[in-house]
Amino acid sequence: MTSTKTRKSRGRKSRRVTGIDQTPPAPYIQRQIATYDILNEEGLCLIEENAETILQETGMEFVDDPEILEIFRDAGADVQGTRVRFEHGMCRGIIRSNAPAEYTQYARNLDKSVQIGGNNTVLAPGWGPPFVHDLDHGRRYGTLDDFQTFIKIHHMIPHLHHSGGVVCEPVELPANKRHLDMLYSHIKYSDRCFMGAFIGEERATDAVNMAKILFGDDFVADNCVLYNVANTNAPLVMDAAMSGSLKVYARNNQTVAVTPWTLAGAMSPCTVAGTLAQVLAEALAGLALVQLIKPGAPCLMGSFASTISMQSGAPTFGTPESGKLVLAAGQLARRLGVPFHTVGALSASKIPDAQSQQEATYNLMMSVLAGANFINHATGWLEGGLVNGLEKTIIDADLCGNIAAFAEGIDLSDNAQAMDAIREVGPGNHFLGSAHTQENFKTAFYRPQVADANSYEQWQADGELDAAQRANKRWKQLLEEYEQPPLDPAIDEALLAYIAKRKESMPDLSYI
Amino acid sequence: MTSTKTRKSRGRKSRRVTGIDQTPPAPYIQRQIATYDILNEEGLCLIEENAETILQETGMEFVDDPEILEIFRDAGADVQGTRVRFEHGMCRGIIRSNAPAEYTQYARNLDKSVQIGGNNTVLAPGWGPPFVHDLDHGRRYGTLDDFQTFIKIHHMIPHLHHSGGVVCEPVELPANKRHLDMLYSHIKYSDRCFMGAFIGEERATDAVNMAKILFGDDFVADNCVLYNVANTNAPLVMDAAMSGSLKVYARNNQTVAVTPWTLAGAMSPCTVAGTLAQVLAEALAGLALVQLIKPGAPCLMGSFASTISMQSGAPTFGTPESGKLVLAAGQLARRLGVPFHTVGALSASKIPDAQSQQEATYNLMMSVLAGANFINHATGWLEGGLVNGLEKTIIDADLCGNIAAFAEGIDLSDNAQAMDAIREVGPGNHFLGSAHTQENFKTAFYRPQVADANSYEQWQADGELDAAQRANKRWKQLLEEYEQPPLDPAIDEALLAYIAKRKESMPDLSYI
Repeated sequence: MTSTKTRKSRGRKSRRVTGIDQTPPAPYIQRQIATYDILNEEGLCLIEENAETILQETGMEFVDDPEILEIFRDAGADVQGTRVRFEHGMCRGIIRSNAPAEYTQYARNLDKSVQIGGNNTVLAPGWGPPFVHDLDHGRRYGTLDDFQTFIKIHHMIPHLHHSGGVVCEPVELPANKRHLDMLYSHIKYSDRCFMGAFIGEERATDAVNMAKILFGDDFVADNCVLYNVANTNAPLVMDAAMSGSLKVYARNNQTVAVTPWTLAGAMSPCTVAGTLAQVLAEALAGLALVQLIKPGAPCLMGSFASTISMQSGAPTFGTPESGKLVLAAGQLARRLGVPFHTVGALSASKIPDAQSQQEATYNLMMSVLAGANFINHATGWLEGGLVNGLEKTIIDADLCGNIAAFAEGIDLSDNAQAMDAIREVGPGNHFLGSAHTQENFKTAFYRPQVADANSYEQWQADGELDAAQRANKRWKQLLEEYEQPPLDPAIDEALLAYIAKRKESMPDLSYI
Repeated sequence: MTSTKTRKSRGRKSRRVTGIDQTPPAPYIQRQIATYDILNEEGLCLIEENAETILQETGMEFVDDPEILEIFRDAGADVQGTRVRFEHGMCRGIIRSNAPAEYTQYARNLDKSVQIGGNNTVLAPGWGPPFVHDLDHGRRYGTLDDFQTFIKIHHMIPHLHHSGGVVCEPVELPANKRHLDMLYSHIKYSDRCFMGAFIGEERATDAVNMAKILFGDDFVADNCVLYNVANTNAPLVMDAAMSGSLKVYARNNQTVAVTPWTLAGAMSPCTVAGTLAQVLAEALAGLALVQLIKPGAPCLMGSFASTISMQSGAPTFGTPESGKLVLAAGQLARRLGVPFHTVGALSASKIPDAQSQQEATYNLMMSVLAGANFINHATGWLEGGLVNGLEKTIIDADLCGNIAAFAEGIDLSDNAQAMDAIREVGPGNHFLGSAHTQENFKTAFYRPQVADANSYEQWQADGELDAAQRANKRWKQLLEEYEQPPLDPAIDEALLAYIAKRKESMPDLSYI
C-alpha cells in the first residue's frame, strides 16, 4: 500500500475534479431515497417459490468443472452427472447464513474505497465491448491505447466511482495475455477500485497475484480489493470459464457478483415473471456455491435481464420489461440479504443520439430506483454492448451525476425550507437577488456538463452543436487535464516483472 | 353528439392504429403500479404546514379582477387591496369538502373519453410553442398548417390520449382570433378530448360556446368536455388573464388544472422544499377559488416546477431537482384529494438529440412515478417550450408507449409465470421455439417505432440514420395514413358560422 502517496494524490485530484462540477466528488452514492417496489409481498413470494421449484425439479448444469460438483455433493445437493438439484430452501439457507450484507472494496487510494451494500450505489463504466466509437473515427476495434484513454477519462469523471474492467477489448494483443495489460492499466492510470479478470481460473489467479503485489499479501488476505462478475449461461448453466474464476475469487475473499445474464424470449421465458424466477434460481445456485467455497466471502446477487425483438431476435434495451425486471430483482436481492448488482446506461443504438439516451436514461434510472448497490455499464454502452463510446461516456456521466443528486432526496433543513426568502421576496417579485439565493446559488442545483440551456441565438453562435459534438470536445478536454495518480515505482516494477514472466510462459493465442 | 358516427369512425381508426403498434390503443393509462413516494409523512406535513403559513402570513395577489376579491371576501378570507390571506386550513377545507377526486372528460368520440383521477394517466402533446422544428425546414414560426399537421400526427399516435391545446401558435393569424381556429382544428381533425383557450374570459367563453355547438348545451351543462390550465404567476400572483378563464370554466363545470408554473431560483426559492411550499400555497388558493365559484367543479392540482441555470439564468429541464419536485407534488395532490396535473417530455435542447431525450425521458418517467393523472407536454417540447418538434414528437411517443407498458406492472398469471416453459426448455437450450414463446410472442414485449435494434451492418445498409432521421420518415408516414374522423356537417357548419360571426366582431390584434 502506498497510502501516504495516494492520499496526497487524492488531494490534488480532488481539487482538479471540482473544476468539472461543483459537486464535491463522493467515492460512491449514499442513497437517501426509498427503493421503488414494483412487486408486493405476494408477488415476491410467488417468484421465490417458483425459483425454488426450478432448483428442485430442473436444477442447474455446472459443466466441465468436476470440483464444483463435489462441492455441491458434499453440501447435500442432488448431483447427477453435471446436473445439480437443490432441496427447497437449501441455497437460500446457505446464503443467508453466510453472505455479508455489506462490505468494503478497497482502492489503492484508500479514500476512493467503495462501500458495497446497504444504501450505497457504486457506478462503474461500460464493460466488454470489442469496438470503440467516437465522432472523429467512427466505430473501430479497440486497442490498448483506447483502453487507457477510457481509463483516464473515467478517472476524470467525478460521477463514476470505479475504474471497471474490460472498458474495451484491446484486440491487437493476444487474447490469452491481454488481461495482464488491462489489469496493469487500471492500476497504473487510476487509483480507484477495479475489477479482476472474469474468465477462467488462470486469469483470475493473475488478477489476485497482481492485487497482492499492489496491496500486499496480508492486506489482500483480509480485505476485498477486486470486484468480479460471474455470469450464468442462461438458462440454468454455469460453465467452467465462470465457475473457474468464481472459485479463485471466493477462496481469496474477493467479490463475486453472480449475475444471470438473460435476454427474455431467447434465454428465458418471454415474460417478466418467468424470467425473474429463472434469474433468481440461477443466482441462488451461484451464490450458494460462493458461500460453500468460502463462507462469508463478499458476493452480490446480480441481474442483467433485457429483452429481444420478437421480429428480428435482436437484443433490445430500455424496454418497459427491462425496467420491471431490474426493480423486482432488486427487491429479491434485498430479501435474500445480499447486495444487488445490475447494469446501467444500456442501448441498442449505434451512435450517441436520441435513441441511445432515451434507452440509457430509462435503464440507469430504473437501476437506481431498484436500489442497486453496484451498477456496471453506467457509461458508454452502445450497440447492445458491442461498442464503448467516448461521447456517450461523457453524456452518460451527466446522467450519473443527475441520479447521484436525485438520490440525495429532499433537504428539509430550515435553509431548504426557505420560508424567510418567501416572506422577503413576496408576491410578484423574483428570487434571483434575494439573500437566500445569494447564499445558496453555488450549490443549489446540479450542473450537467453537456446539456445546453442557452438561448437559440447563443447556441447558433456556438456552432449549433448537438450533445454528441459537445461531448466530443469534453472528453478531449478531460484527457488533456488528466494527471496520472502516482504509483510507487517499486510496485510498478514488480507488476511489470510479473507480467513479463507470465507472458513468457504462455503461447500467443490471438482472437477477437 | 354524433355518437353513432364517431363510434363507427373509431372502429376504423382502431384498426389503422393497431398497424402502428401491437398494443391495442387504450383511451388512457390505467396504472397498476405504485406511485413513488420521495417524502415521508413528516416531510409532507412540514411542506403542508409551510404552505399554510405562506397563505396566512404572505397571502396571494389576485390582480385586475375585483370579482375574485369579492368571492374570497365573501368566503371569509382576509382581503386587503389585491392581497388575499387565508386562515390556516381554510383553502384545504374548501377543496376537500367540494372537489371531485375523479371525473370523466368526454370526447366527441365517446370511446375516446378519458378518466381524470385515481390510477389513471392521460398523456397530452406539447402546449404553447411559437416555433416548430423539423429536420427538413429547421426552426421556424408556427402556422395554422403546422398546427393542423400536429393534430393529425397526434391523432395517429396511439400512446397519446388527448388532442391538447396550443400545439403550436399559428402566428400568421391575429392573436385575438386564433384561438377560434385552434379550437376548430382540434374538433375537426381529431375526435379525442381537447383543451379550451386558457387566456382570458372572452376566449374561454368562445371555447365553452363551441363545445356547446359540438356536444349540445345540455350535455355540456352536465358533463366535462374541456380541459383547461390556470397558471399562477409565481411567486404568489394570479392575474386576470388566468382568473378570467378560470371563472368561466369553473362556472361551466369544465376542468381547471390550477398549475403553479415556476423556475426555482427565479420564481421560487432555489431549493426543492421552499419551492414545494410555494407551489402548494398557490395551488391551494387557486383550487379554493374554483370550488368557491362552483362547488364540485372538476379541478386538478398542477405543478410545473423546474430550475434555472445559476450561471446564466436559463431554464433547465430534466434536472434532479425537477424530479424531486414532481414526485413530492404528486404526493401533496393525493393528500389534498384532487387529481394531479403535471408536465412531461421537457427539454432545453434545440434539436431532437441525446440531450433532448436524456431530459425528456427523465421528466416523463418521474411524472408517471409521481402518479400524475394528466401529463401535458408528453411529446414534442424542445428549447424550454419555445419549440414543438415533429421528430421529437415521434421519438417521445415511443417513450409514452414505454411508460404505458411499464405502468401495467408485472403480470403474475400462470401463463406469465411460464413454469412449464422453463421445465420444457431446460438448461442450455433456448426459448425461441418453445410452445410458450410461440403462444405469447405477439404480445410479449412493447415495440417502439423509432428505436433501431438491428445489427450494425443492417443499420449501415439502411443508411446509418440516427433516431431523428428515422422519426422524420415516421411522421410523414403517419400524416400520409391519417384519415379525418367524420364530423356531422351540420355541426361543422354551425362551428364555422360561430367563428365567422365572432371574428367579424373583433379588430385584428396581431402579435407573436
